[in-house]
Amino acid sequence: MTQALGQLHHYPDPQYRTLRRALGNHHQVPADWVLPGNGAAELLTWAARDLACDLAEGDAPRGCHLLTPAFGDYGRALDAFGVPCLPWPLPLADRSSQGVLPDFDPMPHPQATGLLINNPHNPTGHLFTVDRLALLLERFATVIVDEAFMDFVPPDRQQSLIGHLHRYPNLVVLRSLTKFYTLPGLRIGYALGHPDRLSRWQRWRDPWPVNTLAAAAAIAAVQDEAFQTLTWQWLPPARAALLEGLQAIPGLEPLAGAANYLLVKTSTPAPTLQERLLRRDRLLIRDCLSFPELGASYFRVAVRDSVENDCLLTALTRNMGV
Amino acid sequence: MTQALGQLHHYPDPQYRTLRRALGNHHQVPADWVLPGNGAAELLTWAARDLACDLAEGDAPRGCHLLTPAFGDYGRALDAFGVPCLPWPLPLADRSSQGVLPDFDPMPHPQATGLLINNPHNPTGHLFTVDRLALLLERFATVIVDEAFMDFVPPDRQQSLIGHLHRYPNLVVLRSLTKFYTLPGLRIGYALGHPDRLSRWQRWRDPWPVNTLAAAAAIAAVQDEAFQTLTWQWLPPARAALLEGLQAIPGLEPLAGAANYLLVKTSTPAPTLQERLLRRDRLLIRDCLSFPELGASYFRVAVRDSVENDCLLTALTRNMGV
Repeated sequence: MTQALGQLHHYPDPQYRTLRRALGNHHQVPADWVLPGNGAAELLTWAARDLACDLAEGDAPRGCHLLTPAFGDYGRALDAFGVPCLPWPLPLADRSSQGVLPDFDPMPHPQATGLLINNPHNPTGHLFTVDRLALLLERFATVIVDEAFMDFVPPDRQQSLIGHLHRYPNLVVLRSLTKFYTLPGLRIGYALGHPDRLSRWQRWRDPWPVNTLAAAAAIAAVQDEAFQTLTWQWLPPARAALLEGLQAIPGLEPLAGAANYLLVKTSTPAPTLQERLLRRDRLLIRDCLSFPELGASYFRVAVRDSVENDCLLTALTRNMGV
Repeated sequence: MTQALGQLHHYPDPQYRTLRRALGNHHQVPADWVLPGNGAAELLTWAARDLACDLAEGDAPRGCHLLTPAFGDYGRALDAFGVPCLPWPLPLADRSSQGVLPDFDPMPHPQATGLLINNPHNPTGHLFTVDRLALLLERFATVIVDEAFMDFVPPDRQQSLIGHLHRYPNLVVLRSLTKFYTLPGLRIGYALGHPDRLSRWQRWRDPWPVNTLAAAAAIAAVQDEAFQTLTWQWLPPARAALLEGLQAIPGLEPLAGAANYLLVKTSTPAPTLQERLLRRDRLLIRDCLSFPELGASYFRVAVRDSVENDCLLTALTRNMGV
């Protein structure tokens, strides 16, 4: 980014050829199957508009299925283009499941036009298998899969639908550099999909949605294999240890997750616990009040290094149920 | 920007409070009358959607008047939301006008819903007076004034409509940091308008359209009064000298302009001249083939320092009519 500062007096290439090529190489797809955006959130806006176009062409009653609980910006994007949102509730953990979510079943309402899902799922961390997701590609006019957290899954266990793109022009995969590379302030994400669809999205928006510095950082990031490998090495054991530690605390039921966070069911209301941890330990856990399906019964925590995870576990133990 | 690199691991504030306050202070308007965007081009997208909403509420035949010749992205934005574009041709220079454009007259078709205009006008450089523009505010449901080049006009001669915002909720002023601060790669612009309208735009788009580095640069730029003053000192005499030099070259008829460029009518077709200048002098003039109203008869040149302007004049003299 520092090197790219000197390029700010030029407009970015509206085709973002270098960036698309780098992202395409990273996923082994042709560059014209990639559309960079100002964060995946910007691309979600155009995905929603695409769903609205499907609606305009079809018969009522239709809308977009949304796997819930869901990231709040999905609702914003669907609302912005008047796409009715049909919640598709993911069964949440109960004691008998031992923190492992069932894969979705039954299938959602097949008359819906679209499906918006994320994998791994936020906030549960659940990783759906490609085999199950592939069944959905036959049932909807448009399927948007937000894989913002997929990079955290080591390559041999990834369940990305990118490999299905060439057979399913109705599929769009959204990816982000925000999560894996910890760059939320930079605003860089991308869509992978059929070139015709991506060209349509490009005509809807302005020609330069990604700034020069974000493009430079993205190219460097996807080529940084050392960082990627390091993350795949430290994260799974750190997450397993944190999960185990959380399971050992009375009143907490963590869900097994595949991303860089864990969702935890709590017998002490999450806002109470959050306030205690902030006041006594200067630790912030993410309450789930913004997810109506979860309310005060859940919180989400990031997986960090073992020292920080142990701090969290100690503080949680001290503050639960007192 | 270098200082802000350390902030990239946080999301930007979705309200962009610090940035809005800085931009508001710069123009002496409250912060909630300011909406930052990923370049003025991103905001143009939402302006076009607003015009489409006006259309949906009104009776046919309607559309948006567009002062032509016009910046190409205006047409992209109107097309993207199906807003019919009603060209409103600006009378171009003839010999008798001595390079001074008449102010627009007659008024455009009053049944049109919207008006999209820029001031100073690109590519002519013409500066419309506030008094004339104010008349238009009474006639249209929505008036979008792109003032991307207004910063180049010294404060005592600026003709901005920002002072009319509080009386005209149908007015939106678009501003850019791209031109004045030479930051096209950074993607930062803003809209000034009624808070209700700007809130609506904000609900249509994702929460973080401006990245942290662009926000930091914008705050620094608008506070850099030394740079602003310097530009107002060097540009007007440099432009006057360039205009005079162009007028002295047989076959060229430059138009008087208020921005950092001049539009020039040429008896030698512009593409021919462009190719000669590139080949012989390694100078690039901007042909106007992308403006259908101008075609091969015009080119546009940037005003630069006197040494570079003299190089251009010498090269033009050598290459005209040969």
